[in-house]
Amino acid sequence: MLQPELKTRRDKIRVFMAKKGINAALITCNVNMLYTFGRVVCGYLYLPLNSPAILFLKRPHNITGEHVVSIRKPEEIPGKLKELELEVPDKLMLEGDELPYSSYMRLSKLFPDAEIVNGTDIIRKARSVKTEYEVEVFRRSAQLHTKAYEQIPSVYQKGMTDLDFSIEIERLMRKNGNLGLFRVFGQSMEIFMGSVLSGNNAAAPSPYDFALGGAGTHHSLPIGVNGAPLIEGHSVMVDMGGNFYGYMCDMSRVFSIGKLTDEAYAAHNTCLKIQKKLSEIIAPKVICEDIYQVALEIAKADGFEDKFMGIEQQAHFIGHGIGLEINEDPVFAPRIKTEIEPGMVFALEPKIVIPEVGPVGIENSWVVTSEGVEKLTKAPEEIIEL
Amino acid sequence: MLQPELKTRRDKIRVFMAKKGINAALITCNVNMLYTFGRVVCGYLYLPLNSPAILFLKRPHNITGEHVVSIRKPEEIPGKLKELELEVPDKLMLEGDELPYSSYMRLSKLFPDAEIVNGTDIIRKARSVKTEYEVEVFRRSAQLHTKAYEQIPSVYQKGMTDLDFSIEIERLMRKNGNLGLFRVFGQSMEIFMGSVLSGNNAAAPSPYDFALGGAGTHHSLPIGVNGAPLIEGHSVMVDMGGNFYGYMCDMSRVFSIGKLTDEAYAAHNTCLKIQKKLSEIIAPKVICEDIYQVALEIAKADGFEDKFMGIEQQAHFIGHGIGLEINEDPVFAPRIKTEIEPGMVFALEPKIVIPEVGPVGIENSWVVTSEGVEKLTKAPEEIIEL
Repeated sequence: MLQPELKTRRDKIRVFMAKKGINAALITCNVNMLYTFGRVVCGYLYLPLNSPAILFLKRPHNITGEHVVSIRKPEEIPGKLKELELEVPDKLMLEGDELPYSSYMRLSKLFPDAEIVNGTDIIRKARSVKTEYEVEVFRRSAQLHTKAYEQIPSVYQKGMTDLDFSIEIERLMRKNGNLGLFRVFGQSMEIFMGSVLSGNNAAAPSPYDFALGGAGTHHSLPIGVNGAPLIEGHSVMVDMGGNFYGYMCDMSRVFSIGKLTDEAYAAHNTCLKIQKKLSEIIAPKVICEDIYQVALEIAKADGFEDKFMGIEQQAHFIGHGIGLEINEDPVFAPRIKTEIEPGMVFALEPKIVIPEVGPVGIENSWVVTSEGVEKLTKAPEEIIEL
Repeated sequence: MLQPELKTRRDKIRVFMAKKGINAALITCNVNMLYTFGRVVCGYLYLPLNSPAILFLKRPHNITGEHVVSIRKPEEIPGKLKELELEVPDKLMLEGDELPYSSYMRLSKLFPDAEIVNGTDIIRKARSVKTEYEVEVFRRSAQLHTKAYEQIPSVYQKGMTDLDFSIEIERLMRKNGNLGLFRVFGQSMEIFMGSVLSGNNAAAPSPYDFALGGAGTHHSLPIGVNGAPLIEGHSVMVDMGGNFYGYMCDMSRVFSIGKLTDEAYAAHNTCLKIQKKLSEIIAPKVICEDIYQVALEIAKADGFEDKFMGIEQQAHFIGHGIGLEINEDPVFAPRIKTEIEPGMVFALEPKIVIPEVGPVGIENSWVVTSEGVEKLTKAPEEIIEL
């Protein structure tokens, strides 16, 4: 990755650091390392407010450069800073929502005289507004994601279970370049590649904070497919993560086995209507909670309030930022006062679950422009009969 | 899962708690919830030393029971304990190596008068010695893992890249019941399903602490396949995680495109010799570091010291505990004084990387019995020509 791009990203973080009087950040978690150093390494990026960043590197050894300093353990960092004639920080930020408690405490002790603050919010805030380079990576991801989704009908065979179908779609994603790994923020969140939900399984509540759940096939991972056969009259929603170049593109499409009920098609149209309306109103300076309210009003007006975003357990958001992780800022949910800014990339996912049919609705990835939004994921949006 | 099994596990944790004067644990991380409650839920298992455990449940709502109490946020726990006429702890343990700093601090504040200690070591120590039930789950996992591996030659086609081959093996694993998710301890570790390494890519150092590395296909996930064609005279090592029932079974096998060099076959035999020797000496009361030393001595005696467990970046361990995560205790490495105990389940992975050929060696999963060890993964161990 080009140095100017990395400099831009680091400076975005520095702006927020300066506002809070923070002199330096010590960054080590994989996604933040990827963001600020351009690749995952095992080490610590020391990011001072007023001088170039320094990578204190543990592994791999074959990375070199002007600002790369080899270490065996983080306790060597203060001594190395002294050798480089750099001041130690008096207010240091660490990744407090991401680092385990014990790692945070260990790093805190490196600078015993410094005030230590949790910098996760700052880094996530910087990451929530993408650079032009990042938006371009999203555009390319969305093309591959779309290309893979267009091939989904070709891997369906009559008599498949949801799991059989999922396995073939996973392979499709991989053949189109998906790296497989599904990166998510928060230690309690986990999923394998994404979800394929059909019939009443779409209403099964899960412990995780995704838009829909699914029972899963095993109590150790209660999310997604439950192994049931795909049967006539059921819908199938495919929601696979699109990690082609490190960025999590997000897209859902609905398929059907035979025809669905009129109610299901009506609900699908309601979701498309919500998407259309939101795509017209989302623009710089709009407030996140207002976006959610508009979506909820349309769902209510069309009579789907009790099936909107789930039945037994309803998700209370309509969209979320995406980036190096699937759940970035901002979130379009009640009480979220964040203002939309140009460069934000987000997924919008109005979904409705119809009992005895399954999930319908739509999800696309979008980027905020100076005036409105641009859709990144461009696969057909109607329900495709398999 | 049966309540007596869960009671056994909780009591294993309680034994270590009692030794340290800890009155209660508050458990919330997914693998520890799975271990102590039998499935992943979003909530907190409150585990007192001298009374039954209570699940404070956030999601999903459809889990009920005598000791299940519904909450919206953890701050309700002290009040609920009072309603249940339970004492508040004066020494509480939290998952300090697993919980993010901010979550740990939030939970610490629930009991302002209590001493808070990091309990990750205790839980991992309990988890390192498996119950009979867990060993049986590992036996069944190993059978499916072996069955999937036996089908690997059938999915190879001439002209494939390592990535093509990996994708077909991933599908095989999934078709045989693999849940896909690769659970690993430590926030800096990540991988998708496992690795397929061929030729010189096996020597490429990675940022992660796995036995071998690989360059990966993208800087956002620098591990495993690099997309190069599989060519005549190269070996291919398949090391896919075996998560069939929540437990990470571990097995590596080597294949070849045509014939390999004599040195490669000799190195493979050295690895089999190391495995045989270690399987004869590993037994209750043996010390972990001694196991590593025996392996290293054999590799040295056979002239492979500089290629043992990697070339540019050598892994300094020969085996590791496995369980709900791929990297459990104990580790067979220098300075690890842990005594082997009956019920420990571990992977033993002597591997050698031959320049211009690739990786050779073996990895199996084993359980410690009262007298020695039992091999769980029973696929053929010779190098299979594709």
